[in-house]
Amino acid sequence: MAQPFDHYIDACLEATVSDGGLREDSFRSLIERGRPALREIRGELARGGLPHFGLASRRDDLRVIESLAMRLREDFRRVVILGTGGSSLGGQALVAIAPAAERRRLVFADNLDGGGFAELLADCEPARTHFVVISKSGSTTETLAQTFAVLDWARRQKRPLDLPRHFTVITEPGDNPLRRLADRLRLPLLDHDPEVGGRFSVLSLVGLLPGLIAGLDVMAVRKGAALVFERAIAEEDPAPLAAAALAVGLARERGRTQQVILPYAGALERFAQWHRQLWAESLGKNGRGVTPVAALGPVDQHSQLQLWLDGPADKSFTVITVAEPEPGPMIEPDLIQDPDLGYLSGQSLGAIVKIQARATIETLVDRGHPTRMIRLQRLDERTLGGLFMHFMLETVLAAHLLGISAYGQPAVESSKKLTKQYLAAG
Amino acid sequence: MAQPFDHYIDACLEATVSDGGLREDSFRSLIERGRPALREIRGELARGGLPHFGLASRRDDLRVIESLAMRLREDFRRVVILGTGGSSLGGQALVAIAPAAERRRLVFADNLDGGGFAELLADCEPARTHFVVISKSGSTTETLAQTFAVLDWARRQKRPLDLPRHFTVITEPGDNPLRRLADRLRLPLLDHDPEVGGRFSVLSLVGLLPGLIAGLDVMAVRKGAALVFERAIAEEDPAPLAAAALAVGLARERGRTQQVILPYAGALERFAQWHRQLWAESLGKNGRGVTPVAALGPVDQHSQLQLWLDGPADKSFTVITVAEPEPGPMIEPDLIQDPDLGYLSGQSLGAIVKIQARATIETLVDRGHPTRMIRLQRLDERTLGGLFMHFMLETVLAAHLLGISAYGQPAVESSKKLTKQYLAAG
Repeated sequence: MAQPFDHYIDACLEATVSDGGLREDSFRSLIERGRPALREIRGELARGGLPHFGLASRRDDLRVIESLAMRLREDFRRVVILGTGGSSLGGQALVAIAPAAERRRLVFADNLDGGGFAELLADCEPARTHFVVISKSGSTTETLAQTFAVLDWARRQKRPLDLPRHFTVITEPGDNPLRRLADRLRLPLLDHDPEVGGRFSVLSLVGLLPGLIAGLDVMAVRKGAALVFERAIAEEDPAPLAAAALAVGLARERGRTQQVILPYAGALERFAQWHRQLWAESLGKNGRGVTPVAALGPVDQHSQLQLWLDGPADKSFTVITVAEPEPGPMIEPDLIQDPDLGYLSGQSLGAIVKIQARATIETLVDRGHPTRMIRLQRLDERTLGGLFMHFMLETVLAAHLLGISAYGQPAVESSKKLTKQYLAAG
Repeated sequence: MAQPFDHYIDACLEATVSDGGLREDSFRSLIERGRPALREIRGELARGGLPHFGLASRRDDLRVIESLAMRLREDFRRVVILGTGGSSLGGQALVAIAPAAERRRLVFADNLDGGGFAELLADCEPARTHFVVISKSGSTTETLAQTFAVLDWARRQKRPLDLPRHFTVITEPGDNPLRRLADRLRLPLLDHDPEVGGRFSVLSLVGLLPGLIAGLDVMAVRKGAALVFERAIAEEDPAPLAAAALAVGLARERGRTQQVILPYAGALERFAQWHRQLWAESLGKNGRGVTPVAALGPVDQHSQLQLWLDGPADKSFTVITVAEPEPGPMIEPDLIQDPDLGYLSGQSLGAIVKIQARATIETLVDRGHPTRMIRLQRLDERTLGGLFMHFMLETVLAAHLLGISAYGQPAVESSKKLTKQYLAAG
């Protein structure tokens, strides 16, 4: 079956972008160094480990969330997802490809803000709103705070809400504050796989339940992911390994310490945010890492392109394009009477965006900036699943090349502890 | 009158954050070098130049847009702003502080995307929608393409729209494609000051018209801006100069080549985006510049904090907090029966966010990362006006210290030309 996208890396190498690019020999040697990691992944998976990769080929575990999603779609107008970071971004990235009417079923409350959350609640019809609370550890301050705010709101209604009907809780098994709360209030509980970290959870129920609520074909998401995974495991120089080698090599040898992910598709804006967390939390350790920059084309041509082209030469670029984008409205030739605007005549908005991406890529390369291209045939569940898998693999392989663990986020613990201390001190 | 915010920079200096911070003598010498720029601003303003600063004290020019905004509020349910980059971000940043019901009057179509724009139009009630087209040059591809799409949609309605009633066009005087189109279709036209660049246009009608449509007190925006400007011009070491010196010095001497703007207030998310463009386009020239990073607290603690704390030591931080945030919902003590969650009891969501900001600042400083703090008393028009002015001054002063012009964006021209060529070639 055809791969869901093509991956072009020539314009990241010295032969194409001169000293903005990586030397071929450095590239080769990094690839060599990455191969054992790929073999390790294969082995661990065979031993039943790395479920965030293994989920791609699972088919048995979806029934529960499929029937839950169907019920939520029938019984409620709106589903609010309470969760932050990895409990939210995968679902957001996925739901973004659903049609507007489907997307509007879901609200992702990922930030904490007093005024903002009050507005969110004021905007909910109590009887027709369901809340899905997601926290792997069951102790995320923001998510718990939001949950208590909703519980108070629920009991203040003229007709207080039947909580077990209006809540679903996703957290890992074992004892934790969120699970204890759910038990006390008899809220339905689903297990977050303790072996799947938040930012790697998009192929689990954490990402797929929101996808199902938005009416998406989540099996296709997994199939796209499996396809990319199988090729990566089978090939000698698979795309995720080449990309990891480039990111690490370009940072180390060329000072390209930031990687800009620039999709030309509005629906991939949240995908770039999902990637930003994945990459930042996985690789930002021991003074190492490459800073991910989430961008969006063409709008960021009007805010960031000047800096990218002519500012410090410290960035590499990943431009994601769609070969067959939704055309959207067409610019009807009879409306164009101005010869200066003849270039717009008969174009669809989608076609203009495609051309803008091409012009940006050529300009970046022309200025000597390392630029990789990912070209999707179209933007659908299968492609997005493939992208999720590609970037998860790329991240884990880059961690290997940097000599760090892709999992965990040890540095943020002190800030979390301080918050709890200060709050407890009043 | 009290300044709309406090600005603390101690934790950017070596005395506080050790070799993460700037040496006091480097800091002093950069400030010395910046003073002439401040005098120059004062002089040019006196000669009638630099209208983006001068607008802060103007009061005479608002009448036209005030009555326009009042009419649009009365006659239409929704106003769609067609414009990108500097034609959009200032308005977005301002409107973000309005209540939800007011914010919903406005839709900012700042990106081009075929499917997305089709959805936007499908969602508009034709008779109750007004379009404000903003392009300083009058030749922005995205904005023109959207405008033609709307014109076609408008004539396809069962009752085709009376265009002059449904459109307002803002562009600079003189001949340009958008103005010719407006003339041909007899669309009402307002002048974009040709001396005010897009990313510096927030205090002009470009930013203030959306603000007025959202019911905001735009005079207070200007008053806040004027207050900050007057202090900056009067003082020896004003805050924007100190901040510019720090940004430039930290990049040059400490390798802090990225500046993270991290507000702990949902309503400042778009402000950080506005700043990102201002800073990137103004300073990213001749291989110089500092890369701006737009972030949001607390949500980015769950996506970026690990990288910031323990990744490469290449960033400085600007944390913006609100002393009196909207409290939002309170966590009622009787809901907390779990001793592990006692720390949440009786807290408002706003108070939790305040504490989280404090914990993040302390953790950043503790790890030796240069961190400036901007503390707003509250989030309102006056404060936001002050922030706009502060950061515009800071940007212009940083450009002076980098030896480049803050105005213009010469590097993006080639990409724009390529786009038009490719589209014309079909």
